[in-house]
Amino acid sequence: MEYLECSLCRQNFQAETSFPFCPNCRNPLLFPVIKEKKQFNFRKSTSLEIFQQFLPLPEIIPDLLLGEGFTPLVNLNNIKKIFNLPFLYAKNESQNPTGTFKDRGSAVAVQNAFLKRKKRIGTVSVGNMASSTAAYGARAGLETILLVKEDTPQEKLHALTVFKPVVIQVKGDYGELFEQSYNLGRNHDICFINSVDPYRIEGYKLEAYEIYLQLGHKVPSHMVVPVSSGGHLIGLMKAFFELHHQGLGEKIPEFIAVQAKQISPLAEAFDKGQPTFKRISKPPSIPYAISNPNPPGGNIVLNWIYKNNGKIVAVSDDEIKKAQKMLAEEEGLYVLPSSAASLAGLIKAAPLLSKTEDNLICLVLTGTGLKGKALFMGEGDKILSSSIKALEKTLSELTP
Amino acid sequence: MEYLECSLCRQNFQAETSFPFCPNCRNPLLFPVIKEKKQFNFRKSTSLEIFQQFLPLPEIIPDLLLGEGFTPLVNLNNIKKIFNLPFLYAKNESQNPTGTFKDRGSAVAVQNAFLKRKKRIGTVSVGNMASSTAAYGARAGLETILLVKEDTPQEKLHALTVFKPVVIQVKGDYGELFEQSYNLGRNHDICFINSVDPYRIEGYKLEAYEIYLQLGHKVPSHMVVPVSSGGHLIGLMKAFFELHHQGLGEKIPEFIAVQAKQISPLAEAFDKGQPTFKRISKPPSIPYAISNPNPPGGNIVLNWIYKNNGKIVAVSDDEIKKAQKMLAEEEGLYVLPSSAASLAGLIKAAPLLSKTEDNLICLVLTGTGLKGKALFMGEGDKILSSSIKALEKTLSELTP
Repeated sequence: MEYLECSLCRQNFQAETSFPFCPNCRNPLLFPVIKEKKQFNFRKSTSLEIFQQFLPLPEIIPDLLLGEGFTPLVNLNNIKKIFNLPFLYAKNESQNPTGTFKDRGSAVAVQNAFLKRKKRIGTVSVGNMASSTAAYGARAGLETILLVKEDTPQEKLHALTVFKPVVIQVKGDYGELFEQSYNLGRNHDICFINSVDPYRIEGYKLEAYEIYLQLGHKVPSHMVVPVSSGGHLIGLMKAFFELHHQGLGEKIPEFIAVQAKQISPLAEAFDKGQPTFKRISKPPSIPYAISNPNPPGGNIVLNWIYKNNGKIVAVSDDEIKKAQKMLAEEEGLYVLPSSAASLAGLIKAAPLLSKTEDNLICLVLTGTGLKGKALFMGEGDKILSSSIKALEKTLSELTP
Repeated sequence: MEYLECSLCRQNFQAETSFPFCPNCRNPLLFPVIKEKKQFNFRKSTSLEIFQQFLPLPEIIPDLLLGEGFTPLVNLNNIKKIFNLPFLYAKNESQNPTGTFKDRGSAVAVQNAFLKRKKRIGTVSVGNMASSTAAYGARAGLETILLVKEDTPQEKLHALTVFKPVVIQVKGDYGELFEQSYNLGRNHDICFINSVDPYRIEGYKLEAYEIYLQLGHKVPSHMVVPVSSGGHLIGLMKAFFELHHQGLGEKIPEFIAVQAKQISPLAEAFDKGQPTFKRISKPPSIPYAISNPNPPGGNIVLNWIYKNNGKIVAVSDDEIKKAQKMLAEEEGLYVLPSSAASLAGLIKAAPLLSKTEDNLICLVLTGTGLKGKALFMGEGDKILSSSIKALEKTLSELTP
């Protein structure tokens, strides 16, 4: 029998709840960490099918998938040399179907909704999660309801509509809307798949299993992960707990959670050694994918980070911009500021890390630079003009 | 000994030429079709390494790769039903590192340049090929020179500079610039990797080998491919010739080459049964990735299409827009107009196809909709507004 658990209160609840949060502490409910022996199914080719025994799905319908997962683990051999690190990799999640790690969560949650014969799904989000959910909803023939903020720019709204969802701009507090969405889901038979949905988080686990396989059956010593709602980090960390219970991986990687300095409730709590975070009320001046003033998974992140020797750091816009530039110029990887935050976070946290010669660090790059607002847009200092005839001269004059 | 061949004049030339075009007929030189027995290396995990025996590279340096290839082959189960087709797949090349099939060509050509100790690479292009080449150049530590049209919009220029290439806006005729680039390459030791570069075309072959594997060691009955310079189609078709020589695949798929109606020199030649195409001098009103008035690989495309029972069709903006909308709304795939052209081309060509019950059609989706100008931007007809309180009512009033 499927059940959900509060990882902080340690109580169990029925999986079939329409409000997957602990009635005591309001933290999100998760599927329990798998401790019994499971197998990878290497006769299959998709990530969901290979790791199906680790997912709360009785079957996988391949026709609902879009080719998510098995994203590249890129050896950052140029940046590694700059910082004199022995092993540095980037898991490039921007090569998912809609350009973001969110696709892994949408894929699993939509399988669940479809198997349970739901006709409508929904999500509260403005960005990558909304378009990912709508894409998988379209593929599965489900109606998708997107609840977005009132002030979402028109061009962003429009971009969401390519997958034909219903988009509703909602006036009012975002946190209240998040909570309210579950009531609406119950009353209108809409399966809401928000940022810390337990099925979504199960999807994020697959990223970590893949890293383990791609490293040749090894676990990194450090994982660097940008944090917004907390769902992504929770999924990754849960997967390493599970690998450990399988006897695969001697240790749990030390996680470095990264937030953007302007809105960093978890880094603030971590700095003070507090067990829970304080909600931030001021809105961010520049909205990023990782500027979450009230991360619903925040307290689980703090708890797990404390227990497993992790760190939480906050990085400035300028540090993120430098990291974004370095990834593009040195490795040919152009990613979102919220992705580049992982490199910025590593640079910041480097003095805090226990240094050993076989440290193997893995950055998570969450989404493509083709979407969303960039901080580093290229410097444009090497744009020249020439006629065809003058090209010989123009090229001769280039300083190498 | 490596050599290149004119597939039309049937003459051989040294591979180490700085101008890989036939001195007689000016058509691009290619590596000869491989007829001897080769092996796939399944102990490797990257596409270039698995298919290395089919590439003109003595070794592969994995650290120069970015995770190109093994893009999903998506079963278009919704669109298939609409058109009552037995098997319909899409090879989604937008999940390559820079969001385009060009990455496969850049990966192979940059390996070659690096192995030959070149310090500089270059390309004549404004779009996807330029940024792909610059990304791989950055990764390999090579200086990249991009020669672009004078009238390239500033924001597009700027986007290219994230990978720190030298960008030169060139006044003058694009065709002349294309030819001239090879002289410049010789004089300034720049390895120019243009659209029909023989190494680039070898990279495109890997897409077809992957389709063969992903179909469970089967060859499609039909391949639908948008055509610009011709390089992509030439690479794919060459791969199927090679698979055939390996005894893998009974037949060569029937290719449907698709052009945008406004600039379709190959479709015009095909309609008249002409062996070569006429260059079009008027510039396109809307520039697409597939609007090439003078495709350098065009005559090879025509020759191979005639010989192998292929077709060339031209599709209108409106047909492309409908196809782009259908891919997004029915399958959750948002791709460039030049990619959606493949579905539009299939719809157009459907009455011309020999119908059998086991037709297996594969569309190539060349690049992500996140880049470039879209025709279908979403209809925005389902954007509603509501307060949190009024959401109950708003949702009740939705017509399913």
